[in-house]
Amino acid sequence: MATVTIKMLAGKLNLSTATISKALADSHEISPATKQKVLQLAQELNYVPNAYAGSLRRHKSKTIAVVIPEVADSFFSLALNGIEEVALAHGYHTLIYLTHEKLEREKAILKELANGRVDGLLMSVTVETGTFDHIREFNKQLPVVFFDRVCPEIETAQITTNDFECGYLAAEHLIQAGCRKIVLLSVSNNLSITSERAKGFQKAVLEHQLNGVFCRVVDCNEDAAQNYEIIKAMMSQPDRPDGIIATVEKLTIQIYLACRDQNINIPRDVKVICFSNQPSALIFDPGLSTINQPAFEMGRAAARALLKALKNSSLLLADESVEIPSTLIARGSTKM
Amino acid sequence: MATVTIKMLAGKLNLSTATISKALADSHEISPATKQKVLQLAQELNYVPNAYAGSLRRHKSKTIAVVIPEVADSFFSLALNGIEEVALAHGYHTLIYLTHEKLEREKAILKELANGRVDGLLMSVTVETGTFDHIREFNKQLPVVFFDRVCPEIETAQITTNDFECGYLAAEHLIQAGCRKIVLLSVSNNLSITSERAKGFQKAVLEHQLNGVFCRVVDCNEDAAQNYEIIKAMMSQPDRPDGIIATVEKLTIQIYLACRDQNINIPRDVKVICFSNQPSALIFDPGLSTINQPAFEMGRAAARALLKALKNSSLLLADESVEIPSTLIARGSTKM
Repeated sequence: MATVTIKMLAGKLNLSTATISKALADSHEISPATKQKVLQLAQELNYVPNAYAGSLRRHKSKTIAVVIPEVADSFFSLALNGIEEVALAHGYHTLIYLTHEKLEREKAILKELANGRVDGLLMSVTVETGTFDHIREFNKQLPVVFFDRVCPEIETAQITTNDFECGYLAAEHLIQAGCRKIVLLSVSNNLSITSERAKGFQKAVLEHQLNGVFCRVVDCNEDAAQNYEIIKAMMSQPDRPDGIIATVEKLTIQIYLACRDQNINIPRDVKVICFSNQPSALIFDPGLSTINQPAFEMGRAAARALLKALKNSSLLLADESVEIPSTLIARGSTKM
Repeated sequence: MATVTIKMLAGKLNLSTATISKALADSHEISPATKQKVLQLAQELNYVPNAYAGSLRRHKSKTIAVVIPEVADSFFSLALNGIEEVALAHGYHTLIYLTHEKLEREKAILKELANGRVDGLLMSVTVETGTFDHIREFNKQLPVVFFDRVCPEIETAQITTNDFECGYLAAEHLIQAGCRKIVLLSVSNNLSITSERAKGFQKAVLEHQLNGVFCRVVDCNEDAAQNYEIIKAMMSQPDRPDGIIATVEKLTIQIYLACRDQNINIPRDVKVICFSNQPSALIFDPGLSTINQPAFEMGRAAARALLKALKNSSLLLADESVEIPSTLIARGSTKM
């Protein structure tokens, strides 16, 4: 059976294709009676609109959107640079939207974007994003590529780094440096990256048969003052950790300050390693050991995958997923 | 004499107001003959289009643009948060555009935005922006508010901090701490903020009758590796500075590394103060003395001025200029 097209509907109803398009788009220019006629036939013939037709028509916008939680994090600022480098080279504009880690804002932004402002979307979800219907809906209209904070539940390109291995490597690094009571500080139970890092951490803990009471995941949140108190309370216990893995860059300063304020020396009393790309890690007191994510490269890969899909609407974006490995850089904060 | 309106032109030519509008907008829907007739009468009657008419019509976009050099700088990431807080409270969307310090990109972005994507613009210009015609043109169509890196040449709201006083205060702080050979590191001769800071610095130098050969402005640029070499070369001279004022946050790490690599101790051999809002200044080795700019508040003030103008098209934006003072925070890097 031939695919049902707008042209076929137009022929059968003796209307112009423009009228059919407008009726299907619920245009105010078309009378309710005509709309009903068109919709009824479309339903009868099982007419399926081409998912990317709208997108293709809008290709002239030559604009992609980047929806990210924040920019005050070196991962995202570097990834943005990678995205913009590729977009610019292909003559595309980049619009940046910040969710500030709020699911409600993420939903509102996607709703706004679905109105046709952009050709496609690059996205790193919020810490609150535990359901994905709003993204799935959007993805029916326009292509979406995830990077870093991905959504494996949605079948599209996922640009990631080796979070599981890095959680494992960070724990191994601390264990080799003599740590036996290691905590991993997390900011979300929803994020794929955090749970992968936690799983890697737990694998190392198990392999070394360390005590699960002392080696555990501790939940922090988005509030700097609260995180300081959480870490301070943790570090004032008699059985305080001798190793800390921070899964988020911004926890570093709270860890350093909470330790300093209690005369706990880094690295003598507690060793610290952080998932971070901040160049100033080098000049911290002491220098911070980091898992450096390939932020710039991940941004480039994400933009490349999206632009490829925009040029070839039959591309299966899920095939464009890549994992780019991170690097552990040991500095003073984990010295033996 | 009554103001000439589109309605008057329409009446005189016996055409619809829609036709006049389209003719004035050079629409392809109008014949060349009609266009000429309309333009001729408009000229004869000295018809002046309402500058914000286009903007008002587009108010439904409920979107403002923020055009800034980069996000990997705590000033801009904090200012963005202030902007978004106000925009969100008024039901406005915020689009972020990065110029990466390139005048060409700034021009391209403004050209793109003039097509009607947004209702107004918040802007901090690039280090290259020495001419302003592209902004002046844009400002004929839509309201523009400057913040931080402002354009006093353009008559609109300028949201600033007390850069002149802060240049003076930073120099005074170093002089009180015993410095006699102070350099101010700059990244642009075009920026109003840099030249104001330099003027304040020079005022303090003059007042204390310090030697102008040793107390001077040194030009850095946008390349981290080159800046490291510039600072290293400067610090390896026999008459090297004993005080450094960095006008840009990102120079901090190059200063610390160049000193460390030559065994020059901060603060014993050279004292350092930086215009910066990075929270991690606290945990640097040594802690960094800073001029803390009211980034969040400046972002809020800029957004408030713009939204006020969008709600009241007769508002004189130049009256909305404000200066919000910065704060000097002394830490280890300027200790006597």
